[in-house]
Amino acid sequence: MSLLVTGSIGIDTVSTPFGQADAVLGGSSVYFAFAASQYVAVRLVAAVGADFPPAFRDLLESRDIDLRGLEVRPESKTFRWTGRFEGAMNEAETVAVDLNVLAEDAPPVPPEFTDSETVFLANTHPTLQRALLGKLSGPKLVVCDTMNLWIETERESLLETLRLVTGVIINDAEARALTGAVNLIEVGEAMLELGPEFVVIKKGEHGALLVTRDEPVAVPAYPTKAVRDPTGAGDSFAGGFLGYLSACGNHRGESLRSALVRGTVAASFTIEDFSVDRVKDLAREEVDERVGRFLDMLRIE
Amino acid sequence: MSLLVTGSIGIDTVSTPFGQADAVLGGSSVYFAFAASQYVAVRLVAAVGADFPPAFRDLLESRDIDLRGLEVRPESKTFRWTGRFEGAMNEAETVAVDLNVLAEDAPPVPPEFTDSETVFLANTHPTLQRALLGKLSGPKLVVCDTMNLWIETERESLLETLRLVTGVIINDAEARALTGAVNLIEVGEAMLELGPEFVVIKKGEHGALLVTRDEPVAVPAYPTKAVRDPTGAGDSFAGGFLGYLSACGNHRGESLRSALVRGTVAASFTIEDFSVDRVKDLAREEVDERVGRFLDMLRIE
Repeated sequence: MSLLVTGSIGIDTVSTPFGQADAVLGGSSVYFAFAASQYVAVRLVAAVGADFPPAFRDLLESRDIDLRGLEVRPESKTFRWTGRFEGAMNEAETVAVDLNVLAEDAPPVPPEFTDSETVFLANTHPTLQRALLGKLSGPKLVVCDTMNLWIETERESLLETLRLVTGVIINDAEARALTGAVNLIEVGEAMLELGPEFVVIKKGEHGALLVTRDEPVAVPAYPTKAVRDPTGAGDSFAGGFLGYLSACGNHRGESLRSALVRGTVAASFTIEDFSVDRVKDLAREEVDERVGRFLDMLRIE
Repeated sequence: MSLLVTGSIGIDTVSTPFGQADAVLGGSSVYFAFAASQYVAVRLVAAVGADFPPAFRDLLESRDIDLRGLEVRPESKTFRWTGRFEGAMNEAETVAVDLNVLAEDAPPVPPEFTDSETVFLANTHPTLQRALLGKLSGPKLVVCDTMNLWIETERESLLETLRLVTGVIINDAEARALTGAVNLIEVGEAMLELGPEFVVIKKGEHGALLVTRDEPVAVPAYPTKAVRDPTGAGDSFAGGFLGYLSACGNHRGESLRSALVRGTVAASFTIEDFSVDRVKDLAREEVDERVGRFLDMLRIE
């Protein structure tokens, strides 16, 4: 199924215990698109400013990412984020943020994209998420992310968005904040009551939990020492998950379980290096090989 | 293989968001023994005072637990612990502790137990752990736990114990404190350098990680909403793990992986109720059925 993602494109400056990267390509839709494009062509809807480096555009074009929905605004600047990870690198500390184009109108959806069947609404204002959905002719599988800011300040609007989506991919702290529950299965079940058919709760280095009307499914993170920069792990997870699901053409239980593993492995590659350095030339064979190793690890007698 | 455990027996008072239990049976060796006795007979070496209720002795005797190593000291009192879990119940807060018999000499090993082949040294002073080992005629598989107190105050003695054991089962915070590493695979590898052939790092609700000279193995916790009291989860994990391994008669890679699952499931039962309430009558069939469901969850295509 055709896959559309809308979200941020950023120029990031990130420091971790393993180094620093200055003014590199980032943003939720970018990480998502690199991961998802392992499985299907990705239609990107996002805005950047006049300062967006041509080299970044080249990077995106080098994968199967359709940039007809990339709006370049000559009077504006690209979203910029400066962040830092310390210690166990479980949480990013935002040092500076310039919303720039993200504070303006949402980018338009090109006519060629309105028939998209799978849609990922990366974290943004829930009203904008719904506005985008309203421009599509009838998507079959819609998944969204969100963040604490909207949970706290735009709860009613967020609940309206949740009534429209097929699934949610959200991190554990946000999901707890949204529902008020503590146990993550209860958190997931409370979210199902809000509309979605499935909820994936991301737990960072601790893996992910899938909650549906069937039995919950927990998977660990891919065990690795090679962690240099966790930026984009969550959006890469979503990209691997939804790219795979889009290629499956359904979201039945078995497909969702396999997609969990695809998301897990996508994140494991992204965090091995800064920005998209590890995934920009990543071959599908390498992805499949790691998926195979992960599944073998879990296949216990 | 015959299995011996030495550790604490306690009279616990525990409160959680789901209720309170006053003066109930607890202690590391107790939780271990209930879990391990699903797989093999357990030889218990521990001390209690004159206040140890006969009903608690009956509880232990109702399982396959050999109490010839249970020393009752008429002039002493049983170890008592009062603790509290709040919120996500990830960590116990100790409200009060009376060491009582635990502050005295270690209990003797009865002659009938000196030929034990598998040994679990639950958390205690590392010098006492070695003293017990010295009384055995040649155990084949020795596993220990420890805690922050010994890591901070008895590091040299602890390192001496670690040189003598086959494996370690330890929680994530303690393992990080011991090694100074952050990434848990690096933590495990640093511990392998200290002597053991395998290290199991317990992550509570996030599952467990096995580190050996081969590839690391991560498993999630058993996903459950039924969590009333996490007390004893770690010792139950160790009991399920080592009881199963002892029944296997080897600690090869495949056995260790299966043992991880047995430990995970043992913990999942213990936390469903206070003290040993959930596990005191637990049938092996129920254990195997849950193991089967967990393995099915992890068997992804």
